[in-house]
Amino acid sequence: MLSLLMEGSCGKDGSTLHGCSIPLKNQSLGRWGSGGAPLIRAPEAAGTAGTGSRMCSTPSMGHRLNRVAVMGGTHGNELSGVYLVKHWLQDPSELQRRTFTATPFLANPKATKRCVRYISQDLNRSFTKAFLLSKGTKDDLYEVSRAQEINQLFGPRGSADAVDFIFDLHNTTSNMAACLISDSEKNVFTMHMCHYIQKHTQTPCPIYLYGLPGQENYSLMSVAKNSLGLELGPQPHGVLRADVSAHMRALLACGLDFIDLFNQGTSFPAFDMVAYKLIESVHFPRSPEGELLGIVHPQLQDKDFLPLKPGEPIFQLFSGEEIFYEGDVPIYPAFINEAAYYEKGVAFLKLEKSTFSIPPLEAPAASAP
Amino acid sequence: MLSLLMEGSCGKDGSTLHGCSIPLKNQSLGRWGSGGAPLIRAPEAAGTAGTGSRMCSTPSMGHRLNRVAVMGGTHGNELSGVYLVKHWLQDPSELQRRTFTATPFLANPKATKRCVRYISQDLNRSFTKAFLLSKGTKDDLYEVSRAQEINQLFGPRGSADAVDFIFDLHNTTSNMAACLISDSEKNVFTMHMCHYIQKHTQTPCPIYLYGLPGQENYSLMSVAKNSLGLELGPQPHGVLRADVSAHMRALLACGLDFIDLFNQGTSFPAFDMVAYKLIESVHFPRSPEGELLGIVHPQLQDKDFLPLKPGEPIFQLFSGEEIFYEGDVPIYPAFINEAAYYEKGVAFLKLEKSTFSIPPLEAPAASAP
Repeated sequence: MLSLLMEGSCGKDGSTLHGCSIPLKNQSLGRWGSGGAPLIRAPEAAGTAGTGSRMCSTPSMGHRLNRVAVMGGTHGNELSGVYLVKHWLQDPSELQRRTFTATPFLANPKATKRCVRYISQDLNRSFTKAFLLSKGTKDDLYEVSRAQEINQLFGPRGSADAVDFIFDLHNTTSNMAACLISDSEKNVFTMHMCHYIQKHTQTPCPIYLYGLPGQENYSLMSVAKNSLGLELGPQPHGVLRADVSAHMRALLACGLDFIDLFNQGTSFPAFDMVAYKLIESVHFPRSPEGELLGIVHPQLQDKDFLPLKPGEPIFQLFSGEEIFYEGDVPIYPAFINEAAYYEKGVAFLKLEKSTFSIPPLEAPAASAP
Repeated sequence: MLSLLMEGSCGKDGSTLHGCSIPLKNQSLGRWGSGGAPLIRAPEAAGTAGTGSRMCSTPSMGHRLNRVAVMGGTHGNELSGVYLVKHWLQDPSELQRRTFTATPFLANPKATKRCVRYISQDLNRSFTKAFLLSKGTKDDLYEVSRAQEINQLFGPRGSADAVDFIFDLHNTTSNMAACLISDSEKNVFTMHMCHYIQKHTQTPCPIYLYGLPGQENYSLMSVAKNSLGLELGPQPHGVLRADVSAHMRALLACGLDFIDLFNQGTSFPAFDMVAYKLIESVHFPRSPEGELLGIVHPQLQDKDFLPLKPGEPIFQLFSGEEIFYEGDVPIYPAFINEAAYYEKGVAFLKLEKSTFSIPPLEAPAASAP
């Protein structure tokens, strides 16, 4: 699962990052590797590794996407992405399209090896400016070093050198179906991709927008010019289910197809889209000592993306008592009872459901294939 | 989930351990505590801490069960038992019956605190004679010390001082429903309890018998004169589902009721019982380097305790190939795709389904309440 409350991100100002008319540089795949020894540049050479690319503020017709990465194992115990990426590192044919080949990358190999979410801290919270620019040694927190490596390989974030697109593959223990994750509906390219995926798959693919105003983005995906998180569940962490992996594979294939169509000169019309925006996280009831006093109510369990109405139960205490939702309007919970959120005491996220009008996506400017 | 391939155990010779006519000693609950600082006796004073109580070899009418323990957190990330035991340590009223009160106990508090299965090694494999008699320091493996503490508090294993009954509460990521676990159908008292639970609950409660000939029992449950494991799933490790906890609570209540009825002088007639016996574990296909080459086939996933027939698929390789079950007769898989078994490379356990004739359980000898 993605980290909590990730937000900010290049593009919050309304730009379509993909659409920035920045010349693509350093497009050699060799530069950003495929899970082998990373080519690290000193932070000084990283350019703007900060909170977002304000230079991307003018929406414009985009260019072809040549450099696409598929990340697995950002959390080392979310096994669908881990094993799909390991497979693609051996046989990347599934990632080839007419106009590009995506590069698989194992984001957190140490955590993957130990089958844990992270070693020292959540990698998917380690892409803040402070972490990316910190100068340390190998004894530093592993994920800080790894975030810097990834930022050099696939970014630097907010720069012209950043890769065109990152898919980040996650699993959740929550009943989230095939959730598509972006920071904002203002990422027009990603929204069109979501729309394309929704139209071309059989199962529900709710769109979750995690951006909150005024917060810096600390996610791995923020390194790229544009990105999409695929969050599939329920699947226990440390387990690999065939159905979930097949689903993830199909969604990713659909996303790659979309990029390929775009690269080949397809334009996509405007549309209206339902999506779910983060409001805040809701914590478990706890004792003053921090002990859980209750659990997610059975009536709420597994009801991700369904309306929770005022007066409906949200927690069941061990004592038998119930706690009810006291808001004034329905909200839409997600990441209900996600294992990785227990350490933060979070029981679920409150989302609001909205309809957004997404402008058309024009075909990219002609360029050499 | 219980450890793999646990077997052996006091009682394998056909005795009903509960039925041993050993005078009950040291019945003060204070002696074996309730999760607080344990009262440790030196190993030298432990008596027979070995592989089983051969002195229990003569089936005889049993005595009342006065000392009953309920273990949670034997694996620290199996949260139903962890949080039920924590609740009962605050309010044990649910564990009271007319003839006894069961004692809740958090078996592996360090692993529980970190929400991991174990710290150094699986506690539920640490009750071998070698571990129980090893003389070490506090720097030894945590679970070895803890097994010795538990053996002193609730055993010593195979001795007259051992508690009458242990319930051990587990979760699995597999679709095991409410599995009842014992080492052998020869544990007549436990088989009657299973039968009682099956008759008094609405959902399937398959009985899994884990004993294999000639192997020493290394499970926590083996400390008691008799025992039952409750293995509920599917539930991701590190997650607490209300439905699973409620189910576990109901099964345990039923088991406690059974002991209470027995203690009050109830006898139980003979019956025939279907149960599933362990044959062996089946490993994932792996590369010479140990990497997974495939996953549990979607047609097998979630089919715990259902027949797997010759020629049916068991694995799906990442390459797309399928691997089929090549046995001659149907087997009954269980613990299919259990998270905790990945570290051992085990994909599922092969069980055989059998019908056993269980002799009557006579009412206990009269004794002071």
